[in-house]
Amino acid sequence: MCIWFIHKSFNNLKLLPFPIFTASRLPLAASYTDSSDDETSPRDKQQKNSKGNGDFCIKNIKQADFGRREVEIAEQEMPALMALRKRAQGEKPLAGAKIVGCTHITAQTAVLMETLAALGAQCRWAACNIYSTQNEVAAALAENSYSVFAWKGESEDDFWWCIDRCVNVEGWQPNMILDDGGDLTHWIYKKYPNMFKKIKGIVEESVTGVHRLYQLSKAGKLCVPAMNVNDSVTKQKFDNLYCCRESILDGLKRTTDVMFGGKQVVVCGYGEVGKGCCAALKAMGSIVYVTEIDPICALQACMDGFRLVKLNEVIRQADIVITCTGNKNVVTREHLDRMKNGCIVCNMGHSNTEIDVASLRTPELTWERVRSQVDHVIWPDGKRIVLLAEGRLLNLSCSTVPTFVLSITATTQALAMIELYNAPEGRYKQDVYLLPKKMDEYVASLHLPTFDAHLTELSDEQAKYLGLNKNGPFKPNYYR
Amino acid sequence: MCIWFIHKSFNNLKLLPFPIFTASRLPLAASYTDSSDDETSPRDKQQKNSKGNGDFCIKNIKQADFGRREVEIAEQEMPALMALRKRAQGEKPLAGAKIVGCTHITAQTAVLMETLAALGAQCRWAACNIYSTQNEVAAALAENSYSVFAWKGESEDDFWWCIDRCVNVEGWQPNMILDDGGDLTHWIYKKYPNMFKKIKGIVEESVTGVHRLYQLSKAGKLCVPAMNVNDSVTKQKFDNLYCCRESILDGLKRTTDVMFGGKQVVVCGYGEVGKGCCAALKAMGSIVYVTEIDPICALQACMDGFRLVKLNEVIRQADIVITCTGNKNVVTREHLDRMKNGCIVCNMGHSNTEIDVASLRTPELTWERVRSQVDHVIWPDGKRIVLLAEGRLLNLSCSTVPTFVLSITATTQALAMIELYNAPEGRYKQDVYLLPKKMDEYVASLHLPTFDAHLTELSDEQAKYLGLNKNGPFKPNYYR
Amino acid sequence: MCIWFIHKSFNNLKLLPFPIFTASRLPLAASYTDSSDDETSPRDKQQKNSKGNGDFCIKNIKQADFGRREVEIAEQEMPALMALRKRAQGEKPLAGAKIVGCTHITAQTAVLMETLAALGAQCRWAACNIYSTQNEVAAALAENSYSVFAWKGESEDDFWWCIDRCVNVEGWQPNMILDDGGDLTHWIYKKYPNMFKKIKGIVEESVTGVHRLYQLSKAGKLCVPAMNVNDSVTKQKFDNLYCCRESILDGLKRTTDVMFGGKQVVVCGYGEVGKGCCAALKAMGSIVYVTEIDPICALQACMDGFRLVKLNEVIRQADIVITCTGNKNVVTREHLDRMKNGCIVCNMGHSNTEIDVASLRTPELTWERVRSQVDHVIWPDGKRIVLLAEGRLLNLSCSTVPTFVLSITATTQALAMIELYNAPEGRYKQDVYLLPKKMDEYVASLHLPTFDAHLTELSDEQAKYLGLNKNGPFKPNYYR
Amino acid sequence: MCIWFIHKSFNNLKLLPFPIFTASRLPLAASYTDSSDDETSPRDKQQKNSKGNGDFCIKNIKQADFGRREVEIAEQEMPALMALRKRAQGEKPLAGAKIVGCTHITAQTAVLMETLAALGAQCRWAACNIYSTQNEVAAALAENSYSVFAWKGESEDDFWWCIDRCVNVEGWQPNMILDDGGDLTHWIYKKYPNMFKKIKGIVEESVTGVHRLYQLSKAGKLCVPAMNVNDSVTKQKFDNLYCCRESILDGLKRTTDVMFGGKQVVVCGYGEVGKGCCAALKAMGSIVYVTEIDPICALQACMDGFRLVKLNEVIRQADIVITCTGNKNVVTREHLDRMKNGCIVCNMGHSNTEIDVASLRTPELTWERVRSQVDHVIWPDGKRIVLLAEGRLLNLSCSTVPTFVLSITATTQALAMIELYNAPEGRYKQDVYLLPKKMDEYVASLHLPTFDAHLTELSDEQAKYLGLNKNGPFKPNYYR
Repeated sequence: MCIWFIHKSFNNLKLLPFPIFTASRLPLAASYTDSSDDETSPRDKQQKNSKGNGDFCIKNIKQADFGRREVEIAEQEMPALMALRKRAQGEKPLAGAKIVGCTHITAQTAVLMETLAALGAQCRWAACNIYSTQNEVAAALAENSYSVFAWKGESEDDFWWCIDRCVNVEGWQPNMILDDGGDLTHWIYKKYPNMFKKIKGIVEESVTGVHRLYQLSKAGKLCVPAMNVNDSVTKQKFDNLYCCRESILDGLKRTTDVMFGGKQVVVCGYGEVGKGCCAALKAMGSIVYVTEIDPICALQACMDGFRLVKLNEVIRQADIVITCTGNKNVVTREHLDRMKNGCIVCNMGHSNTEIDVASLRTPELTWERVRSQVDHVIWPDGKRIVLLAEGRLLNLSCSTVPTFVLSITATTQALAMIELYNAPEGRYKQDVYLLPKKMDEYVASLHLPTFDAHLTELSDEQAKYLGLNKNGPFKPNYYR
Repeated sequence: MCIWFIHKSFNNLKLLPFPIFTASRLPLAASYTDSSDDETSPRDKQQKNSKGNGDFCIKNIKQADFGRREVEIAEQEMPALMALRKRAQGEKPLAGAKIVGCTHITAQTAVLMETLAALGAQCRWAACNIYSTQNEVAAALAENSYSVFAWKGESEDDFWWCIDRCVNVEGWQPNMILDDGGDLTHWIYKKYPNMFKKIKGIVEESVTGVHRLYQLSKAGKLCVPAMNVNDSVTKQKFDNLYCCRESILDGLKRTTDVMFGGKQVVVCGYGEVGKGCCAALKAMGSIVYVTEIDPICALQACMDGFRLVKLNEVIRQADIVITCTGNKNVVTREHLDRMKNGCIVCNMGHSNTEIDVASLRTPELTWERVRSQVDHVIWPDGKRIVLLAEGRLLNLSCSTVPTFVLSITATTQALAMIELYNAPEGRYKQDVYLLPKKMDEYVASLHLPTFDAHLTELSDEQAKYLGLNKNGPFKPNYYR
Repeated sequence: MCIWFIHKSFNNLKLLPFPIFTASRLPLAASYTDSSDDETSPRDKQQKNSKGNGDFCIKNIKQADFGRREVEIAEQEMPALMALRKRAQGEKPLAGAKIVGCTHITAQTAVLMETLAALGAQCRWAACNIYSTQNEVAAALAENSYSVFAWKGESEDDFWWCIDRCVNVEGWQPNMILDDGGDLTHWIYKKYPNMFKKIKGIVEESVTGVHRLYQLSKAGKLCVPAMNVNDSVTKQKFDNLYCCRESILDGLKRTTDVMFGGKQVVVCGYGEVGKGCCAALKAMGSIVYVTEIDPICALQACMDGFRLVKLNEVIRQADIVITCTGNKNVVTREHLDRMKNGCIVCNMGHSNTEIDVASLRTPELTWERVRSQVDHVIWPDGKRIVLLAEGRLLNLSCSTVPTFVLSITATTQALAMIELYNAPEGRYKQDVYLLPKKMDEYVASLHLPTFDAHLTELSDEQAKYLGLNKNGPFKPNYYR
Repeated sequence: MCIWFIHKSFNNLKLLPFPIFTASRLPLAASYTDSSDDETSPRDKQQKNSKGNGDFCIKNIKQADFGRREVEIAEQEMPALMALRKRAQGEKPLAGAKIVGCTHITAQTAVLMETLAALGAQCRWAACNIYSTQNEVAAALAENSYSVFAWKGESEDDFWWCIDRCVNVEGWQPNMILDDGGDLTHWIYKKYPNMFKKIKGIVEESVTGVHRLYQLSKAGKLCVPAMNVNDSVTKQKFDNLYCCRESILDGLKRTTDVMFGGKQVVVCGYGEVGKGCCAALKAMGSIVYVTEIDPICALQACMDGFRLVKLNEVIRQADIVITCTGNKNVVTREHLDRMKNGCIVCNMGHSNTEIDVASLRTPELTWERVRSQVDHVIWPDGKRIVLLAEGRLLNLSCSTVPTFVLSITATTQALAMIELYNAPEGRYKQDVYLLPKKMDEYVASLHLPTFDAHLTELSDEQAKYLGLNKNGPFKPNYYR
């Protein structure tokens, strides 16, 4: 592990001023404020910030002040990254790092980027999603001379153009990749394979991106070490379990105002996301049924008090159907045909194929957009199914992601960067790695002050008894 | 009890098509859609519906179609009222009733008004709140020739003008009052006391209105029977406990996107509303403290697993403070001064005086409106308090009320109307009454089909053993 | 209300030493320790305590020391009664009272009796149940010269003989009755009706006893005021809801060691007891179904997340069936015939007729006693039903009642005694009364120190705003 | 993986007759029934079963019938093992296996042993604990000619003597070890190291035993493959989380009758055991504080709604303190000195050193045994601490382990045996292994029928999309 982590104690962090919440503004909300923007493509505009720097491409540099305020508020909620910045005043573990990144561009990402810079790195950035960019934040970054190429509402062509502008630069070559979804990595593989000679590692955040990396690795084509941030304990447990426990309620309420009490809900999949959804809905008085393919998760569902069923058995009585599987065609047209009038259908899993939405685009069914992100699909006999976000992720489309969760992820990304960049030759091969346990624990410890939580420290005698280092790691790597 | 209830069985109701949810659109949401409206006062406009009828005063009759669709969707979610309409095809228990009403004017109210009409009544209606009118719904009612006098954004003068237009009509005199807040009743007492000679009864929905009625009764000035709908079991338990259990989460999320897990929350008051808030927040992983004045509720809080404290003891560590007391100045400036940076303060009780918001309007404090319904109040040292809805009701201002709950209330109001209107001479004196238990039970039974819930019926032998009528009431009046 | 309550503040109670738990020893447990006792009937023995007093009839005076220790431990857990004793050092609100009592005779009852004595009363006592007497406690009371007539394992003849010995005394006539079940009251009505001339009131604890009193009252035969302690808020909520929430788990575990996770459970009845059982089992991971006759309770079950069914619909899949209705023949032979192998059947309601146990005593079924309180009833095809406590109350037969709950009940009984005994002529007629709200609140307040719970006090301004006395009562009588 | 698992589908298991519960009788309960036994050491008795076989040493062969009935009842609750027996009618995957075992000897173990025999193995067995043997079960096994050497209440010398009798046999040499605690393995290492030449593998169940194996492995001294059953997913999640969720309540109730509602509880350690304890106590209305050394578990505690504290911060207010750490001296004499009167202290972790009980054996403190497994430790000022099971495991000493959990463990042990015994040369080296994921899943699937739970099967298209085999494994090995 990077020397940088070794001699520090977890507990004597100064608590930053307590977070004022900030919205992680999402497409839906932002659309109201952007309505008056002009329609010229950013690619067609001459762009310069107030210092005369023009190495970026964004919607509107004039929004920089507004964006800066968003970033400042986000900083208050991301004490772990701010603590890293503070430590970086002494040493710069990323000095010399040239990071190319491709993630959602939000206030929280801006805090991450500016932290990476404070740690010594140079950054160039594109968006990993054509809708998710907060234009005002991109403006704030551009104003601070970060090379950002992103705006809300890119075309697919824009999307790849932006990525290309990040990597295809004269006189600058990345040596680290921070990716979310694997598109950036894919682009470099396809267009600039030689670049990998200088790249020390990839940090990947998403399920999809990680999956691609494992496939590359299996095929023997992965030519640099990669860090799988997605499967880190903190990410899995916090991003999925705890975050979804809240966002399932939030997403359903904001879109449908449904009352949860007494509703019959089917949750497909009892992984971390499913566990979070089930716990929340049960607590709100819903009657929850679970479907599973994995007998271990199935048995957990039983012990947690949920009837384990096949979807067909309960489809007629369901008021709400939620997919959390990562699988495809979990809810089929046949299921949709059998649902009762008013049934709400939505997806909390990781792709947009869990509900076979395509099967609903047939002439005999009428679609009626009743609100943003809410469609009524109407059968010939008048039956209406309430489809949310057209089957895309409810938690991304219709609710906000708490900054606290984003803070955990961003801190993990920053530490993974530092670890890969500073790892001695040979520690990491051309393979996909999980974050070392100790760093997972470090991320967690950086977030405890938020809760005024006080860790107990092992005495020497106890550490010896347990055969542990007093500073951790406290659990074997396989522990979850 | 009115004969109308006696010979019917609760269980053989046909289930109406299952409810498609509808939003109970509230000021916040509606404001986006109304922005393009013109600024002429409705009082200054010539108004006529398509049938040439002009006995109403609303914002814009052209919105009638849109409003009608909202009403139709609401109908699907209010099966109990629709069941009453169906029964009214045979008999008209409100034939001859002339009802003057003063309530929030929403799609759900429209379903109630049109049900009262279907039961035989004539109705004239004003709004009980200057902001809460859904203009498009008012238009739909006016288009159907209901005499509605209400629009969103009335001045106080408009407010009383509208009420007066409802009651002060040539050739029409009300014989029933349906009030929410007591303003209509108060107006008639003040301006047209003689009207009470023909009035058979008042049905009052709100805490405030009921309180006024009890004061009148105590003072010997109540000159007609009044039905206290607010304290009916279904209203108390469902509107307060179950509804607030959901709306506290919804209101906080929509305004602040706060993550609940690990947050320290103080809930002031452990009545039904407080119980609902506490249960929801505990379930979402918050650490909840309770304050109470009543030792019985206090002991319940203990047994439910909450630390019972005085506000002062925990004010410094609170992340969120929620008032649910019905009291005033529960959160004082002194408390606010001691809160930590970022503390969220909001009110779920019934008045807007629970938080001493007035004390925050002093020169040394800066107010910053960060979103609709969200203010940052900033202390000279930079500390920010997040004040929601300026201390008004969070659940009314920042979340929606589930139609299911409104359906229970509206059905109760309709039954109370029927009971008072049909009660034989002498059953009700000039006093305030609670709804007879059997009618409370009837309201509940009308809502069971929504949950596909199957009541068990007593056998003759069991009924005899218990000394109960097989059709209820099943509990003494004091049972809750 | 009795003047005794008026001028005292609830909050400045000194906290007694924190309770060391004590078992409320019940038949099951006690049977092990009593096995060596001799078999002579107590009625045939000469009995005298160490002071030469012989006005009692118990099992064995030699157990007095052991019983005294049980009483002393119970005292530590009943701080409210001890607080009353302390106050009684100044005044004796029961001076002159001659109380005849008929209750379970346990350590907790002993604390109550000795408190009544400290308050000035003379007491004579019999047992209300032939099995529930703790012999060693009866001995401790007898040793302290209380006239106790009770032992574990009385015959029915013994039972009435003991009651008669309490009331039929030369030169002593009761003026107050404290009854649990109504047998004592019934005996006096039948045998010594003239006694009622001197009796100031009856305090009744049980559902059955209260029911009998209301019948007497209806029939115009109740000749003294009676206080219905059973329906006091604290009793209902704490004894039923909170106590049963724990005892259902305890009773099932001690008898069957069943694992709750994943089990399908049917709870018949969703009153306070049913609510407690359902909440506990849901929390332990059981899947719970509810049956109800009352639509209000039914709707509550729905909103709390339970499927509302008829017993027939789920009887085949149930792992556990629990009755909490107060009704009879809720589980019939037909249901029992349809249950699956291994189904556990038990009763938490108030009578032993909820399960039709009589119907199981037929030749084709084999009964096998597998443990104390546990029978296997075996069908011809080998199917076994696990019947607990032969259908009697599980929580009384197979688990212990927490002293905390008994403390609430005993304190309520003591206050009801004081109130009735001191009430000015005319306050109470020959009717059945609920405890005044203020006294209910007083009982609750006496128990708050146990939880280190801090009540908030109203300011003068707030009390005025709410129209309340600062010392309560804080809620209308109908509030629950 | 052993071929035996490959071609079978999980779902078409025939459901055995539903389990009649059975007690896993533990020392406490059993002590009542054994009191009349004679005092001669079993080692000094001549022993023979009805077939004349005498190769065993137990308490009393006459108890065999009673024990057999216990075993038969246990069989009904262990459908997974019974399903294995059924499959074994065709093939005998353990044919030729000579298993020496050292575990608790209970009805459930008997079902395991007889299953191993049905699968083809010969077995010799000793007890892993000097108190935990059910004598009647040992008798039943001996009667069936199993070579069992165990009785309740062995001396330490007896303990090792029994183990030695299992392995030191003329003409018989074990080739498989099934150990619980590592004592058997240790004995063979020490006394008969040559035996390992023929041994194909060790299956170890306990934390301690596994720890010893890892130490051997690290030291290069492990000379056969070993299967770590303790860390299998099913064991960890079910035995620890779900089982402790129930047994913490059961253990506390049976020993102290404490009411959980409103109690302040400190749980030391938030691993699976701690999580189970916290969830249960929170659900019962306790106020729970958590201590942790691991920041990840600490953050989970926060998100689950528990205050994370150091023990010192809350020790004065605690009503109950529970250790679940696996560490030593977590509760020190200093903590015990500061606890309040009546505080209950107990241990749910895996050793008996978590509470420093030794520090309480000093002259100034008085110990008073108030019940079996319950001591009052009394300070000079009269303060009493309630110490349970003298700091040994509460769940083993004072509650029963549900058969369902034992069934999961026993099935896992059986499958691990089969896997190790049949593994082709080279699959397992001289190292410690976790059970292959697929077998964990198989164990789980064998237990689903108990809950009438229906697994969903992947379609070919879905399996391909996910890159999974339709029969599993469904998750990577690191997934928990």
